[in-house]
Amino acid sequence: MNMTMDMMKGAMSSSDMPMKDMDPAMMQECMEALSACMQACIMCADADAGEGAGMARCAGLCANCADMCDTMMRMMLRMNGWDMQVMMSMMQSTVMMARACSAECSMHAEMSEHCRMCAMACDQAVMAMEKMMGSMSEAMPMA
Amino acid sequence: MNMTMDMMKGAMSSSDMPMKDMDPAMMQECMEALSACMQACIMCADADAGEGAGMARCAGLCANCADMCDTMMRMMLRMNGWDMQVMMSMMQSTVMMARACSAECSMHAEMSEHCRMCAMACDQAVMAMEKMMGSMSEAMPMA
Amino acid sequence: MNMTMDMMKGAMSSSDMPMKDMDPAMMQECMEALSACMQACIMCADADAGEGAGMARCAGLCANCADMCDTMMRMMLRMNGWDMQVMMSMMQSTVMMARACSAECSMHAEMSEHCRMCAMACDQAVMAMEKMMGSMSEAMPMA
Amino acid sequence: MNMTMDMMKGAMSSSDMPMKDMDPAMMQECMEALSACMQACIMCADADAGEGAGMARCAGLCANCADMCDTMMRMMLRMNGWDMQVMMSMMQSTVMMARACSAECSMHAEMSEHCRMCAMACDQAVMAMEKMMGSMSEAMPMA
Repeated sequence: MNMTMDMMKGAMSSSDMPMKDMDPAMMQECMEALSACMQACIMCADADAGEGAGMARCAGLCANCADMCDTMMRMMLRMNGWDMQVMMSMMQSTVMMARACSAECSMHAEMSEHCRMCAMACDQAVMAMEKMMGSMSEAMPMA
Repeated sequence: MNMTMDMMKGAMSSSDMPMKDMDPAMMQECMEALSACMQACIMCADADAGEGAGMARCAGLCANCADMCDTMMRMMLRMNGWDMQVMMSMMQSTVMMARACSAECSMHAEMSEHCRMCAMACDQAVMAMEKMMGSMSEAMPMA
Repeated sequence: MNMTMDMMKGAMSSSDMPMKDMDPAMMQECMEALSACMQACIMCADADAGEGAGMARCAGLCANCADMCDTMMRMMLRMNGWDMQVMMSMMQSTVMMARACSAECSMHAEMSEHCRMCAMACDQAVMAMEKMMGSMSEAMPMA
Repeated sequence: MNMTMDMMKGAMSSSDMPMKDMDPAMMQECMEALSACMQACIMCADADAGEGAGMARCAGLCANCADMCDTMMRMMLRMNGWDMQVMMSMMQSTVMMARACSAECSMHAEMSEHCRMCAMACDQAVMAMEKMMGSMSEAMPMA
C-alpha cells in the first residue's frame, strides 16, 4: 500500500480537512488491518458454508464484518467525505462488529483453522481502529 | 420487493433468531428506503463530480452514505448474522450518516435538483430506520 | 424506485452521454431486477450456510452473484462513468454469473424454498439484462 | 497479506476445486493489485469531484473501477464460488474497465498527481490479472 500512502499524503497536505493533522502512517496501518480483516472474513464465511448448522452464525457474522470493514476503509479513503462525528460513530460500530465476529470465531478456533486466523484478523482490526479513534478524538472539537 | 419479503418471512418463521418477532413489512419498508437512498446517493455523487469545488464535500458524503446504506441493507438480509447490539449500533451510525448527507444536500437543493431528491431519500431512510430501531429496542433484552 | 427514475431522467436529459437515447423505464426495470436478485442471493447464501456441505457451492455462487449485481447496478446509476464497451462486457459477465447461480439453485429448488425463489430472481435479472443489452447494442457505434 | 495467503493455501489444499493447481503466490499478487487499484480509484474519484466538469468522466470511471476490483477480489477469495468460466469472464471485464480507467487518468496525469498514480495502479492490476488469466486458461477444460 505504498502508493495508497503516497496518494493519501498528497491529498491530506493540500487540504484543510478535519483529518489533516492525523498521522498518515497510522491511517495506512488502520486501512491495511481493515483490508486484511475483510479478506479473512470473506474466506471464513465461505469455508463455514460447508460445515453445517453450527457454523451458520459464524458465516453470517463474518459476511457482515467483511461488508462493514470494506465500507469503513472506503470512507477513510474519501478525504472530501470526512465528517468526524460520522467517522467516529461508524468506527465504533465496526469495532463492535469485529469484536462480535472475533468472539464467535474464537469459539471454534481449535477445530477450525480459518476461524482461528479470522479471529486474529478481527482482533488486529480492533486494535488499529482503537488507535485511530484515539487520534480522532484529539482532532475533534470539544462537544 | 415482494419476493424479498416472501423469502424473509420464510427465513424468519423457521428461526429462533432475535428478530423473529419483528414485523416483516416494517423490515421490508426499511430495506426499500435504504436501497432508494443508496441509489439516490450514487446518482447525486456522480452528478456532483462535474459541478466544481463547491460540490466536493457533497460528493464525498453521498458516496459514503451509499456504501453505508448498502452495507446496512445487506446486514438486515442475513438472518444468521443478526446481533442485536451490532445491528443497533450500525443503524445509529447509518442514521447519523444519512442526516449529515441530507443536511449537505439540502444546502444546494434549490439550485440542484439531484441534491433536493437525494436529501428526500436520505430523510425517508432516516425515518424508516428510526421506526425499525424502535421495534428493535423492544426486542432487545434488558441490559 | 420512482425517485430513482426521476433522477435518472433528469440526468439523462441534460447529457450528451452514450445512453441518452435509452429508455429510462427499461433501465429502471433492469436495475430493479438487479436489486431484487442481489437481495435474493444474499438471503439464499445466508440460509445455505446452515445446510451442510452440499450447499457450500450454492452459498459461494450466490455471494458472488450478489456482489456482481450490486456492482452492475451501481455502474448503471453513474451517468458520467458509462463506457458502452465496458458496460456491455460487465453485463455479459453478470448474465453468465446469474445463469450459473440459477442453474445451481434450480438443482435444489424442490427441497429448498429459498433456492427456488433465488433461481427465479436470477432468471428475471437475466431477462432484464438481455433486453437492456439489446438496446445498448443499437446505441453502440459500429466496430 | 500473509494471513490471507496462509488462509488461501489452507483452503486450496483441502479442496478438489477448479483452482487447486493454481499458484497461491500469483493469486495473492493479483488480489493485492486489485486491492491497491480499488484504493487508488476511490481516492482519485474523490479528488476529481472538486476539480470541475472536465474531471466528471474520470470520477465516474474510477468509481466504477473501484467497485469492479472490489467484487473481483471478493470472488477470488470465495473458494466455494469458483466457476472458471464466470471468473474468466468477470476478469476480462475488469481488465477492460481498468484499461478504460487508466486511459482516462493518463490524459490528465501531467497536471494531476492522483490521476498519474491511479493510472499506474490500474496498469498493475491489468498486468496481474493477465498473468492470472493465463494460468486460469491452462486449468480450464477444453471447450
